[in-house]
Amino acid sequence: MQSEGSDAILPVARPPHLGTPPNLPLDMAVTKRPLLLTPGPVTIPEEVRQATARPLLYHRGPEFKHVVRRVRDGLKYLYQTREEVIVLASSGTGAMEGAVVNLCSRGDRVLVVRGGKFGERWEKIARAYGLDVVPLDVPWGEAVDPERVRRALAEQGPFRAVLLQASETSTGVAHPVREVADLTRRTDTLCVVDGITAVGVFPIPFDEWGIDCLVTGSQKALMLPPGLAFAGLSARAWQAAARADLPRFYFDFARERDCLAQDTTAWTPAISLIEGLDLVLERIREEGLDALFRRHRLAATAMRAGVRALGLSLFTGSPSDALTAIEIPDPPGASAVVKRFRDAHGMTIAGGQDQLKGRIIRLSHMGDVDRYHVVRAMTALESVMDELGFRPADGAGVAAVVASYARGATE
Amino acid sequence: MQSEGSDAILPVARPPHLGTPPNLPLDMAVTKRPLLLTPGPVTIPEEVRQATARPLLYHRGPEFKHVVRRVRDGLKYLYQTREEVIVLASSGTGAMEGAVVNLCSRGDRVLVVRGGKFGERWEKIARAYGLDVVPLDVPWGEAVDPERVRRALAEQGPFRAVLLQASETSTGVAHPVREVADLTRRTDTLCVVDGITAVGVFPIPFDEWGIDCLVTGSQKALMLPPGLAFAGLSARAWQAAARADLPRFYFDFARERDCLAQDTTAWTPAISLIEGLDLVLERIREEGLDALFRRHRLAATAMRAGVRALGLSLFTGSPSDALTAIEIPDPPGASAVVKRFRDAHGMTIAGGQDQLKGRIIRLSHMGDVDRYHVVRAMTALESVMDELGFRPADGAGVAAVVASYARGATE
Repeated sequence: MQSEGSDAILPVARPPHLGTPPNLPLDMAVTKRPLLLTPGPVTIPEEVRQATARPLLYHRGPEFKHVVRRVRDGLKYLYQTREEVIVLASSGTGAMEGAVVNLCSRGDRVLVVRGGKFGERWEKIARAYGLDVVPLDVPWGEAVDPERVRRALAEQGPFRAVLLQASETSTGVAHPVREVADLTRRTDTLCVVDGITAVGVFPIPFDEWGIDCLVTGSQKALMLPPGLAFAGLSARAWQAAARADLPRFYFDFARERDCLAQDTTAWTPAISLIEGLDLVLERIREEGLDALFRRHRLAATAMRAGVRALGLSLFTGSPSDALTAIEIPDPPGASAVVKRFRDAHGMTIAGGQDQLKGRIIRLSHMGDVDRYHVVRAMTALESVMDELGFRPADGAGVAAVVASYARGATE
Repeated sequence: MQSEGSDAILPVARPPHLGTPPNLPLDMAVTKRPLLLTPGPVTIPEEVRQATARPLLYHRGPEFKHVVRRVRDGLKYLYQTREEVIVLASSGTGAMEGAVVNLCSRGDRVLVVRGGKFGERWEKIARAYGLDVVPLDVPWGEAVDPERVRRALAEQGPFRAVLLQASETSTGVAHPVREVADLTRRTDTLCVVDGITAVGVFPIPFDEWGIDCLVTGSQKALMLPPGLAFAGLSARAWQAAARADLPRFYFDFARERDCLAQDTTAWTPAISLIEGLDLVLERIREEGLDALFRRHRLAATAMRAGVRALGLSLFTGSPSDALTAIEIPDPPGASAVVKRFRDAHGMTIAGGQDQLKGRIIRLSHMGDVDRYHVVRAMTALESVMDELGFRPADGAGVAAVVASYARGATE
């Protein structure tokens, strides 16, 4: 399933800037679009892209019902749940809003773990619907201490829900979802988790951990184009949804669940993306969740080993296996690194957002990744840091990556 | 740009039911998926499908900004407006909800033209947000009389908005948008139009007619997969949006407008579909709106001529050029016709919805359509009606289609 954006540009007339990145060194191929090392979207495997390009099925016809049937099963496998996982035509933010409007009522108090841009997004959504938000501030780059959650639940409640990220994409931090769910499951508070860069990367067994709502998106570990979002709800979350009075229509989860039970969707689904999803979920089942999580863990471990070998600092001590956030000294500064990756190496990486702008870079290792993905990214990082005068490229980074893989190191 | 789903199935492992429709006659090719004659999704041209399958661009990178820039211009051309047309990752229903929540405040009174399933959808959305809905009931199959709208506005107002369809997909009716906008533009009432099967089919010059909000979707005349929706707002609609207090986050139009001004989107966009959109809008500009509308008018006129020549009745005297709704006597009944189209001819058509279930069939002529599309559809219709014992196939239907095109008939 390896594919690294290596397809020549199709012969559709395009302005020249859409083809070859400018200023590529002479030793690099020039028929490529910039390779994505961004923490979403990630590179889409060739066969998945082609699956999304097939002649459309009619979404109310019998063939598509078979697709939906398989997708339902595949999503339950991925989520490790017996509950229905609903499928939305939206970005992940739509599913986050859906979680709030389906589970909460006017004036409900919610606890928001606010340790990055996406924690802040939970807060903004909740405030847009007039909820009583209690923020639990965590320095960007740190994971929330479950003890602080416990105290907040005990002292500032009652809360309808705790809203947090499993993987905070803006900082590369993994929050302790299991420990938080251990607290909420013994109370009436729902544990609502943004798993957008977590589901399919590392274990979040939905039923076993007692999570109440877990949302994700298509363009991360599911290695699809953006445009699909997902939400799994626990039995008690479905009960809460039946009582919740916030207004909703397009993101009405119960309506979607009832339609899914008949292998269809409430509104016209993103048919082409769901065809790709069908294939991806089949591949994930073939690989198996244990192997899938181990593959991501190997990649993340190797990436971190390479970064350390280059003398760079990891931004967080509680890293998500989805991406690696790296502190970049100034000079050269993170923005110059991002620019050099793209202009001289034909790869797109992400910088920092908001307060981290200019301070960090973020490299993804989600989806269709293996040692060659990590070696490639590390080769570029080492070359860029040399070209920008930080440190001569001597292969220390890639050596550490290869050695980490050879040891099967998973920290 | 002709493509009729004629691509062989890609060699991805699929259950046999996903390939060839069962029971195809021996004279028909068997490598095809069912051809879509449904009023959305429509058949996607090959080059558009391939454009959606290209390696992804990063949505925050400079190449994608160029794509968004072109798409903005193309949408303004399509809408015939100088205002921004926002792009959402959702189905058309999401844009309808967006229109309501961005333009209305709690308790606002709205007039809903209720003459089909999608008129009822306006009502359901408005009620979900607690609006004071005054329905204006129109028998399914009839267009609203503007005089009734005038009286309702005068006697039952004040109304924040009139909500109607330009083309009511469930009945095949075109409502008199121009006349309704002529009424509203002289008042404080906003004219909010569902143009999902209208934009790109027949003229709805947004600025000239004084429409306030016009929504559409990707899988109709824009001949893309579903997953994108659009909304244009007039200057006074943007003012209303600044005052409207219904809660919104994912569908916050003002936020999207501000992002578009910088050639980006608020949330992760459906990148692959937008690449297809870029190509489609380029093709529409090449063809020109006059030619585009005339091509649809020719197809609709020819389809109606063929239906009459077969001795069948059109369901409505106020037809939309997007689709033709045909009354089917019982026997054979509309459901048998739909089934026979698919099982014996490899084509998917739509039956009636709700109160029209079993009474009508609906054939689309939106998007990538020409005389060969209409001849093909009519050949199938004539054959099916013969096979089901209604009338011997003698070529009267296709003859009428060919003659209609030869005369350049546009009624």
